[in-house]
Amino acid sequence: MADIHTLTRRLQRPADSKIILCVSDGLGGLPLEPGGRTELETARTPNLDALAQRGVTGLSIPVLPGIAPGSGPGHLGLFGYDPLEYEIGRGVLEALGIDFDLGPDDVAIRGNFCTVDDAGRITDRRAGRIASEIGAALCEKLDRIDIPGVEVFVRHVREYRLVIVFRAPGLGGQVDDTDPQRTGVPPLDPKPRDEASRRTAEICRQFIDRAREILKDDAPANLLTLRGIARRPPIPSFEEVYGTRPAAIAVYPMYRGLARLVGMDVLDAGSTLDDQMDCLQRHWADYDFFFVHYKYTDSTGEDGNFDAKVQRIEELDAAIPRMTELKPDVLIVTGDHSTPAKMKSHSGHPVPTLLVSDLCRFDGSASFGESVCRIGELGHFEARFLMLQALAHAGRLEKYGA
Amino acid sequence: MADIHTLTRRLQRPADSKIILCVSDGLGGLPLEPGGRTELETARTPNLDALAQRGVTGLSIPVLPGIAPGSGPGHLGLFGYDPLEYEIGRGVLEALGIDFDLGPDDVAIRGNFCTVDDAGRITDRRAGRIASEIGAALCEKLDRIDIPGVEVFVRHVREYRLVIVFRAPGLGGQVDDTDPQRTGVPPLDPKPRDEASRRTAEICRQFIDRAREILKDDAPANLLTLRGIARRPPIPSFEEVYGTRPAAIAVYPMYRGLARLVGMDVLDAGSTLDDQMDCLQRHWADYDFFFVHYKYTDSTGEDGNFDAKVQRIEELDAAIPRMTELKPDVLIVTGDHSTPAKMKSHSGHPVPTLLVSDLCRFDGSASFGESVCRIGELGHFEARFLMLQALAHAGRLEKYGA
Repeated sequence: MADIHTLTRRLQRPADSKIILCVSDGLGGLPLEPGGRTELETARTPNLDALAQRGVTGLSIPVLPGIAPGSGPGHLGLFGYDPLEYEIGRGVLEALGIDFDLGPDDVAIRGNFCTVDDAGRITDRRAGRIASEIGAALCEKLDRIDIPGVEVFVRHVREYRLVIVFRAPGLGGQVDDTDPQRTGVPPLDPKPRDEASRRTAEICRQFIDRAREILKDDAPANLLTLRGIARRPPIPSFEEVYGTRPAAIAVYPMYRGLARLVGMDVLDAGSTLDDQMDCLQRHWADYDFFFVHYKYTDSTGEDGNFDAKVQRIEELDAAIPRMTELKPDVLIVTGDHSTPAKMKSHSGHPVPTLLVSDLCRFDGSASFGESVCRIGELGHFEARFLMLQALAHAGRLEKYGA
Repeated sequence: MADIHTLTRRLQRPADSKIILCVSDGLGGLPLEPGGRTELETARTPNLDALAQRGVTGLSIPVLPGIAPGSGPGHLGLFGYDPLEYEIGRGVLEALGIDFDLGPDDVAIRGNFCTVDDAGRITDRRAGRIASEIGAALCEKLDRIDIPGVEVFVRHVREYRLVIVFRAPGLGGQVDDTDPQRTGVPPLDPKPRDEASRRTAEICRQFIDRAREILKDDAPANLLTLRGIARRPPIPSFEEVYGTRPAAIAVYPMYRGLARLVGMDVLDAGSTLDDQMDCLQRHWADYDFFFVHYKYTDSTGEDGNFDAKVQRIEELDAAIPRMTELKPDVLIVTGDHSTPAKMKSHSGHPVPTLLVSDLCRFDGSASFGESVCRIGELGHFEARFLMLQALAHAGRLEKYGA
């Protein structure tokens, strides 16, 4: 009974309460100088500060202390799925990132167009970084490949990058990459790592043979390599494990895809934060759990632009009243990981988190920021436990045991 | 080596030190208004405050963040038994609650007298809530049922509620309830869920048949249903895993039962806190671990009576000197869960905890309350680790590894 979901399945309590989980991507940061303020602490955030005063705060550990997660494990953790148990392969994440609707029988693959010489040796692993229009046209040709007993989908991502999906019952996802990671040698053979993946490997071989024929006159993109071959992981649905009707309000495809992976309805969120708030208000009656994703705190952090990240946090703050006016029973603001502008990358620093509900103990948090969160009531907690707190504060969990 | 007890068995160090674990049931609370004080923070507690100043504080997570436990898992956690690993069935808890001395071969069952019509269909699942005298008399009749190869015990709880215990080697505890949870249908058949429980189910059937005969003229209590059929869980004894001689000083049967379940000697505790302190002093030389249970912080919380809970905390505070004058090497004051008067129920909020010993690091705690505990030396910890702290601060654990 160690598994969180064994527990939540059993303790689900029907309720009319509503929960908003607002994920500001890469929210956590670092000061630029010792003793300085982080991006969040620098931003003027009257609305988030008011929430912190009404609620409780803490620091979320996305995976394990110090571990910087990608978007996949970062979000799975927040959704209450142990990111060390549920792994999302690169191919699957890439497919989610172009809004491809992966089914349970799908094996997804990240493809790279490459250049090979007459002897079949790779001379350019990225096919001279061909223009996106060219890549897209080549993908349309490859999408017509027909392999008996398998549905084949080929979708362009950008430039030399593409996604390939094989759909057939029982395909294993344990096949080695064909990209040798260097030039001067031919692509590797797609080797299966288990019995269930023998057929997948064989399908990969047939696909490559057909692609070689189709692309033979398309140099520099006259072949492709396959990477991150992976099956969609079997993930129990959010509704089944928590008993809530969940919806995702996310602008970027990857986050819509991650939400779809756990069975959320993905709503038409538009393209701005205002659009997202319109969407939230429009669908308020239809669901009882809303995942709202805000991307720009991560992208500005990745750019190393401290001031831009501060500004993006202030934009999020300005949208908070549109969430609070709906009177959610539980409102959580957190991030899937930290992306300090100082590091220009995801980091393993714990993530500032606030939770507001009428059942909060309060903890004297005067504002929302890393320093305040460090001594908050939520403590330093693993992200995968946040859903338990959300459900508990929404009156959606029965007592455990008598 | 993830199991705590594998570790404590190996690291046990004999010592003369004495530990008091004082559990104030449902101790944690909530302020009634944002920014207000909890019950514990409102109470005048000079003795507990003095302990906090001499010791360290922290917040205990009974099971997992947000999870509100019942008394069973709440106490198992404090005793160092993972409450997600050791589950106590409803029947077992009910038997413990009437001070029934369950043996290792016992299957315990919660029974409800019910009314059935001539066709055998239930018309009242609680037999018109018969008076306790009537229920008691019927239980005496049923207690005489004789089933070959099994000892049968029938004990009255109150009104229409009773406990049935079957004692025989090898009986499984996986049998479905016979209560259909609605009227207009007959009781369900006691179906076994595993091979080991086939015989238990057969015994249940024989018992019901005999009971039907015995009760046939006792309408409205002319039959009974069986619920929470459960075997006493196999729990290693406190003495074996920790190397201490433990005693329980509890007034209420359920807590005496829980203590007995982990192998504590259950002492004659009288009925008041003063009686309990007399008992503690009388037996001080006989044991080296004392579990003292104080019920009224929970019951006043369940009643939603903030002021009464405050008063009960002050009563506990007044008893503290009788514990400290014994000069225990370690004195812990905590709760098995929170029971905020505001919620009138157990909750998943972490529980204020203090530990005093000569080996404390001190943490500047000025008083005993949730806000102070939030930043204390013990941190936010899972309750099942508290026994490690108790043993460590009592000099009862060897170093782990060289």
